[in-house]
Amino acid sequence: MTSRIASLTDFLLMQIERSAEVRESATTRKPLNRQIYQAIREAILSQLLPAGWQLPSSRDLARGLALSRNTVTYAYEQLLAEGYLETRAGAGTFIADTTPDQLPETHPHTAPLIDPSGQSELSARGAKLVQQAGVSDLQWGAFMPGVPDVTLFPNKVWSRLQNKHWRRSQAELLTYGQGGGYHPLRTAIADYLRVARSVNCNADQVIITTGIHQSLDLIVKLLGEYGDTAWVEDPCYWGTRSVLSSVGINPVGVAVDAEGMNIRSANLREPPRFICTTPSHQYPLGMVMSLSRRRMLLEYAATHKSWVIEDDYDSEFRYGSRPLASLQGTDTQGRVLYMGTFSKTLFPGLRIGFIVVPESLATAFSTGVSELYRGSQVFLQAVLADFMREGHFASHIRRMRLVYAERLQLLQDAIKDNFGDTVEITGGDTGLHLTLGLPSHCDDFVISREARSAGIIARPLSRYYMSENTTSRGLLLGYGCVPNAHIRPAFDVLAAIIKKHI
Amino acid sequence: MTSRIASLTDFLLMQIERSAEVRESATTRKPLNRQIYQAIREAILSQLLPAGWQLPSSRDLARGLALSRNTVTYAYEQLLAEGYLETRAGAGTFIADTTPDQLPETHPHTAPLIDPSGQSELSARGAKLVQQAGVSDLQWGAFMPGVPDVTLFPNKVWSRLQNKHWRRSQAELLTYGQGGGYHPLRTAIADYLRVARSVNCNADQVIITTGIHQSLDLIVKLLGEYGDTAWVEDPCYWGTRSVLSSVGINPVGVAVDAEGMNIRSANLREPPRFICTTPSHQYPLGMVMSLSRRRMLLEYAATHKSWVIEDDYDSEFRYGSRPLASLQGTDTQGRVLYMGTFSKTLFPGLRIGFIVVPESLATAFSTGVSELYRGSQVFLQAVLADFMREGHFASHIRRMRLVYAERLQLLQDAIKDNFGDTVEITGGDTGLHLTLGLPSHCDDFVISREARSAGIIARPLSRYYMSENTTSRGLLLGYGCVPNAHIRPAFDVLAAIIKKHI
Repeated sequence: MTSRIASLTDFLLMQIERSAEVRESATTRKPLNRQIYQAIREAILSQLLPAGWQLPSSRDLARGLALSRNTVTYAYEQLLAEGYLETRAGAGTFIADTTPDQLPETHPHTAPLIDPSGQSELSARGAKLVQQAGVSDLQWGAFMPGVPDVTLFPNKVWSRLQNKHWRRSQAELLTYGQGGGYHPLRTAIADYLRVARSVNCNADQVIITTGIHQSLDLIVKLLGEYGDTAWVEDPCYWGTRSVLSSVGINPVGVAVDAEGMNIRSANLREPPRFICTTPSHQYPLGMVMSLSRRRMLLEYAATHKSWVIEDDYDSEFRYGSRPLASLQGTDTQGRVLYMGTFSKTLFPGLRIGFIVVPESLATAFSTGVSELYRGSQVFLQAVLADFMREGHFASHIRRMRLVYAERLQLLQDAIKDNFGDTVEITGGDTGLHLTLGLPSHCDDFVISREARSAGIIARPLSRYYMSENTTSRGLLLGYGCVPNAHIRPAFDVLAAIIKKHI
Repeated sequence: MTSRIASLTDFLLMQIERSAEVRESATTRKPLNRQIYQAIREAILSQLLPAGWQLPSSRDLARGLALSRNTVTYAYEQLLAEGYLETRAGAGTFIADTTPDQLPETHPHTAPLIDPSGQSELSARGAKLVQQAGVSDLQWGAFMPGVPDVTLFPNKVWSRLQNKHWRRSQAELLTYGQGGGYHPLRTAIADYLRVARSVNCNADQVIITTGIHQSLDLIVKLLGEYGDTAWVEDPCYWGTRSVLSSVGINPVGVAVDAEGMNIRSANLREPPRFICTTPSHQYPLGMVMSLSRRRMLLEYAATHKSWVIEDDYDSEFRYGSRPLASLQGTDTQGRVLYMGTFSKTLFPGLRIGFIVVPESLATAFSTGVSELYRGSQVFLQAVLADFMREGHFASHIRRMRLVYAERLQLLQDAIKDNFGDTVEITGGDTGLHLTLGLPSHCDDFVISREARSAGIIARPLSRYYMSENTTSRGLLLGYGCVPNAHIRPAFDVLAAIIKKHI
């Protein structure tokens, strides 16, 4: 018995020292009782302590380890609860037999599952997604496109509204959300969209999501089958392609021209399930879809029962004239699903967006959104609803429109002073970025990389094209999150790099 | 000219009155200039005002309508910007030709796309999702399973931490999140899991998501192909099945017994891509997977390169003994993806969960999460990180464990007093609900419906089974969000209903 105590004691002391060494820091060192538990557990799993072997009493072991008995008792009890030990009445505590249950001898019909590419453990769709990932590792600074200046967000007002709700925290604000979202917010959004975007809708047609990505995911899951096609604009937002592919929808590029997406150039004999478009501000080129194009698109969609997915991501910021009416507003057949987001108007980290769905789909979508994602954060939605109802949303947009208009001007001046009229600027009348066209012999990927190592984000235009052989070259330059004073110096650095290639 | 003004004037006045009538409320009535814009726009779209027709000057029309000229000018400018009108130099303003561009005559190869079921406009997968939706329309009250008592959440502490961050709102807290989530939170979670759940991980293996649903969605998108199989426990959580099906993974039920998921009863010759299991607290029945089962499962997964998805949703609340070690902690082959959530420990509306992935997958997953969902709310993650670092998380769990233990006792007593030992109670030693077994001749759906109309949530056990012909009947009774005083009266009402069927 004593020898057994001795051996186990030495063993445990050794284990504990070793484990103490490997702990990175004191903060993560485990309490002694956990260490003993861990040490015995590892010894059992590695069969150092064989099944049937009797453990010394907790008193004896505690004495051997010079620890309080509770420390050891705790470890024993935990190991009993987890089935590593068993007690036999009157006999004591023993190592339980935990060898795996035997499986019947089987010869699988199929080989072990491994990634066809053999490259990684990822599935083919996973590997594709990661390899082609378009998301930037840097999300802030000159000239990150599509990011608003969050430092100008009225956070005092937001805090006040937030605290109001947290003081009297009602259960319904903290538990799972109701399908479709917090109704007062849905009402506020519907009221806003009717006036500001000429969207025809009532509150029940507004489905709250966490943003464009979730909106698109929900739409294609509810309305699309695996293998369906979606027409996307070429070029288009990388996220649209990634989300579509991840749920088995094949994106097919359709060329854009001065009037926007030109479905005439698509294969009209194979109507797609979805047509994804950015009519108010083509992403990334920035043109507006002409009225006759809009009506052609709607007619085609109605005839062939395709769904039009309108991505209206940043048209609140239109400099000069007022924002243009949405495509949804001219749809009389109920074929348009309108997606919007607060990522550009307020701040991206809010992760609140919405879909306006045809009335006939409202119930299905509000069920679908809670079934698939368990609804979203009602307490945040309540704050946003107040923020809109009290008029802070409208005035923040008005204020930021002036800020961005000024930054746009500064960037355009900097471009002019460096290049005169030798480069083409597109899409500068709306949104948070413009596109700087480059001669087709320039490699915009190389320029982008060189800029990046000079600390400047300038995303290459050709990256947004699906067709490998596009001759379009350029850079997306976002000015939304760049302080006025930084715009010129940052662009001068970029210009120097461009001039080496032009 | 005058006649033209007159006619247009009358027409517009009529339109405006009509539109004024249909406005639901004064708050949503549009400003006059919008109404004129709208009226002319509708008239053009409905061809009441033909292309080429000349509009009166804004001055003349304003006089005719007895409005300020600006009001009319505004409407004209907006219509010009949107392409409904065109100006001809020196001639004036005309209705533009906005008839849709003609499409080449096409006879599609495929018939118009409609839902095969013909029932709705939804796709087959969408229709299935909505028809089989498991989400409850009520999320609060006796006896909603899986919902914690959010009214006991320390919201003052939370508010304080929240305000601290909002006062000095840094850009990185409000813009798009970095892949994988806010690093201090990932560290806090890793430290917690190592000690409390015996999970082997470092911070980089922790991927922040919006909860179990998004975690599962991400895992199967990155590691699974369309058409792959996933073994799920039968019965299991409805959300697991819905999310899997929505991304093209086929859930195959595997029976559970007293030791948990029994993969021996599965078709071992067809190794699945995924094995979804709840080893610490089987959902909904509540048993713990035995150690030898765990090791059998891990061996099988390692041999056949299947991924084990461990859903550890509520085992922090273990009454009597300490929480049991995770399955991930005994995995030596890196086949386990461990999913956790703060929905049960803090509050569901928080929508923060996490995956612990094998080290080899950490980079792919942190890229994937921002590529697919644009990361999540860093400002909330920062608050949660402080909440954990300052020890509020641990103490809230300790406190709630006592609260729930007491409620469990009250519910068990109420059951005993009504039924003695004639009904079986399972899964009551952990989590936020127990399962009340019923004789196989009882229709638990009917009982559930009757209870619901008596204002009581009692979800039918058979609903959680995949196999139609299961003979298991029972009710899931959640006590987490039921105040002590309500438990007995609510159960007495339920008991009366049950007795009519037993």
